[in-house]
Amino acid sequence: MPDFSHLYSINATHMKASTIRELLKLTQKPDIISFAGGLPAPDVFPVEDLRVAANAVFDGPARKALQYGTTEGDDGLRNEIIKFEAKQGVTIAKENLLVVSASQQALDIVAKLFLNPDDYVIAGRPTYLGALQAIQSYSAKVLGVPFSPAQDGFDMDELRRRYAEAKAAGKKLKYVYVIPDFQNPAGFCWSLEKRKALLEFAYETGLPILEDSPYREIRFIGEAIPSIYELDQKGANKGVVINLKTFSKILAPGTRIGWIMADPALIAKCVVAKQAMDLCTNVFTQMWLAEYMKTGKLYGVIESTREKYRVKRNLMVEALRRYMPARDDLSWTEPEGGLFLWVTLPASIDTEKLLLKAVEKKVAFVAGSGFYIDEPEHNSMRLNFSYSTHEQIEEGIKRLAEVVKEALAASGD
Amino acid sequence: MPDFSHLYSINATHMKASTIRELLKLTQKPDIISFAGGLPAPDVFPVEDLRVAANAVFDGPARKALQYGTTEGDDGLRNEIIKFEAKQGVTIAKENLLVVSASQQALDIVAKLFLNPDDYVIAGRPTYLGALQAIQSYSAKVLGVPFSPAQDGFDMDELRRRYAEAKAAGKKLKYVYVIPDFQNPAGFCWSLEKRKALLEFAYETGLPILEDSPYREIRFIGEAIPSIYELDQKGANKGVVINLKTFSKILAPGTRIGWIMADPALIAKCVVAKQAMDLCTNVFTQMWLAEYMKTGKLYGVIESTREKYRVKRNLMVEALRRYMPARDDLSWTEPEGGLFLWVTLPASIDTEKLLLKAVEKKVAFVAGSGFYIDEPEHNSMRLNFSYSTHEQIEEGIKRLAEVVKEALAASGD
Repeated sequence: MPDFSHLYSINATHMKASTIRELLKLTQKPDIISFAGGLPAPDVFPVEDLRVAANAVFDGPARKALQYGTTEGDDGLRNEIIKFEAKQGVTIAKENLLVVSASQQALDIVAKLFLNPDDYVIAGRPTYLGALQAIQSYSAKVLGVPFSPAQDGFDMDELRRRYAEAKAAGKKLKYVYVIPDFQNPAGFCWSLEKRKALLEFAYETGLPILEDSPYREIRFIGEAIPSIYELDQKGANKGVVINLKTFSKILAPGTRIGWIMADPALIAKCVVAKQAMDLCTNVFTQMWLAEYMKTGKLYGVIESTREKYRVKRNLMVEALRRYMPARDDLSWTEPEGGLFLWVTLPASIDTEKLLLKAVEKKVAFVAGSGFYIDEPEHNSMRLNFSYSTHEQIEEGIKRLAEVVKEALAASGD
Repeated sequence: MPDFSHLYSINATHMKASTIRELLKLTQKPDIISFAGGLPAPDVFPVEDLRVAANAVFDGPARKALQYGTTEGDDGLRNEIIKFEAKQGVTIAKENLLVVSASQQALDIVAKLFLNPDDYVIAGRPTYLGALQAIQSYSAKVLGVPFSPAQDGFDMDELRRRYAEAKAAGKKLKYVYVIPDFQNPAGFCWSLEKRKALLEFAYETGLPILEDSPYREIRFIGEAIPSIYELDQKGANKGVVINLKTFSKILAPGTRIGWIMADPALIAKCVVAKQAMDLCTNVFTQMWLAEYMKTGKLYGVIESTREKYRVKRNLMVEALRRYMPARDDLSWTEPEGGLFLWVTLPASIDTEKLLLKAVEKKVAFVAGSGFYIDEPEHNSMRLNFSYSTHEQIEEGIKRLAEVVKEALAASGD
């Protein structure tokens, strides 16, 4: 076996395998009830309508769909995305839009464009693991900001305090990463007030905001709040927000298609970066999704996804209320959208250790520590409610509560 | 418009838009005969068989195909790739294999794993532009090595001389990038002897070889020569070769699927790098191509591609003989496979300037200078023969020869 270790880049030494993805392999045994993944419910995928759309590509522009495409993305798909965004109140032109191989590629592109080794990205504590991986893969770091007790966005005082401290220490800050709508992992949704405050912070500091919105359309309770991208656009319109969208949660992740919306000059930079990464996004799939979007049926799929996830979220919340010990230091978020909720356990419990006990009892979750780069909290867990069946949610939370009770008893807590 | 220029990374300042891709936009007017692209002939795409395979996915594992997949790649596709390679004499296991979003992603992954700013990659003069872009996008550099007069691989004396010089100057060399089979842009094919010599060089220096083989199966004259990956495997088996393959030239580039074959430890590193880049390759397309490969019809497509390209290559060579001025300092390669040939013009001609004249006469090519990072040669051009029709090849070379004759007359040469 060759030893290339002396040849690897500094970046390579900073890349970390996702412990979540490694754990997923362990928890994919058929008899385990897993709340660990982040998978959409497969029964929402509109298989037959997608088949019709794929066959329309074979009937029509098949040879174009099988050929190389432009880095910017298929024109037909870009037109459909522009209409989709317009319906939600966001007006974009083609020059604001880049089709990407789903959001993770967008996270990679933005990280590559902005980050030198030891630069900092401001991000929530906790935040999406894939964003952390992209940042680390360029040897950059995260300045973590806690959320306010109301869980409606960053603690803005802490943001300003930590920003000032970092600047004073000579740290190079490059952008602010947020998932305002039903964030992964905790399900937090930013209030209008906090979105405006963050935009104001961006205007003051000159830092762009990377707004990741994979779950934005999956709101099942309450009214939509404008995205930060939209707030900027309809306000001072300074173009400081980079907004990431994807078909992964509103249609089907196996298609690996997403899009970046941003200022045209930044999109042009993203195009150059993407060229060296994969030349262009899967052309057939782009034309296939364009055909599907033309039918207008995506809106029905989103509506039915919301309905299904609302029921599952309610089932999980009710099961938590029913089975978990009632204590002031044991709580969970009750999100208005998305795929995840976040359980905070008494401080005596380490959820990484708890997971081993849970897997013995045939139930799995993700330990919260994976969603922090620095000083992780050890007493939290992420639960996914989109993928499991109703029966699995009931039975799985019951098992999980037993594991928690046993751990509390064992620690004498 | 926001100005983020002070926030961009060092890498971002080194990224260069592909002048070729920019030029392609200019040359895509319908009345221009373009030899500039690198597109496969669309009439080789087996549209109906691909439709049947896609529908088999819709009939069968559709919900799995629309879901997230593993970073390593779909098991079914990996099995088919293993059989495909075995048929060519290359024995690999799953741990030697990573499915990627086509070869450009593999070039990105390898560059990210090995290259720090100012590191060097050894590569041919000229070589594939996309590889140069990937290298530059990590702020790394290229140590160019000229080909031997026989065009059967590097001038090995020059390789050793330049390597020793670079080492003496303290340059950090990381890998050797080659395209031994019908390289882009010149169509050169490495002899068995030169392949063995390069492998020996790798053993001696400890540098891995990145062997890019997109055109390997598209040989239309002569017998296949073992890949360097195969030579290592069947010889000392030191695992120093990273071999890149893709469906882009043997089936259809719009599917954006390729694969990396390498030592398992390196594949494991590639998996971690890819996770942060796009989580996984398009799952639907992987299962779709697996279905298609199961039919065994890919071999027929490759055979028919060879047949079609042989005819087109012969037509282009004959037209060059017929129309180009007969001079000792005007020559072209006559490749035994691939998609391109390379014309070297008298030193008085600058092909970047010649291109403007050519476009006026409604014919296009790629100026050779784009295929060098350092000290480009200015009197060469790349011609693609796979995409144009027979009539276009005849008429296009006729026009091109006129432009060359006029340029020679104008320069008094």
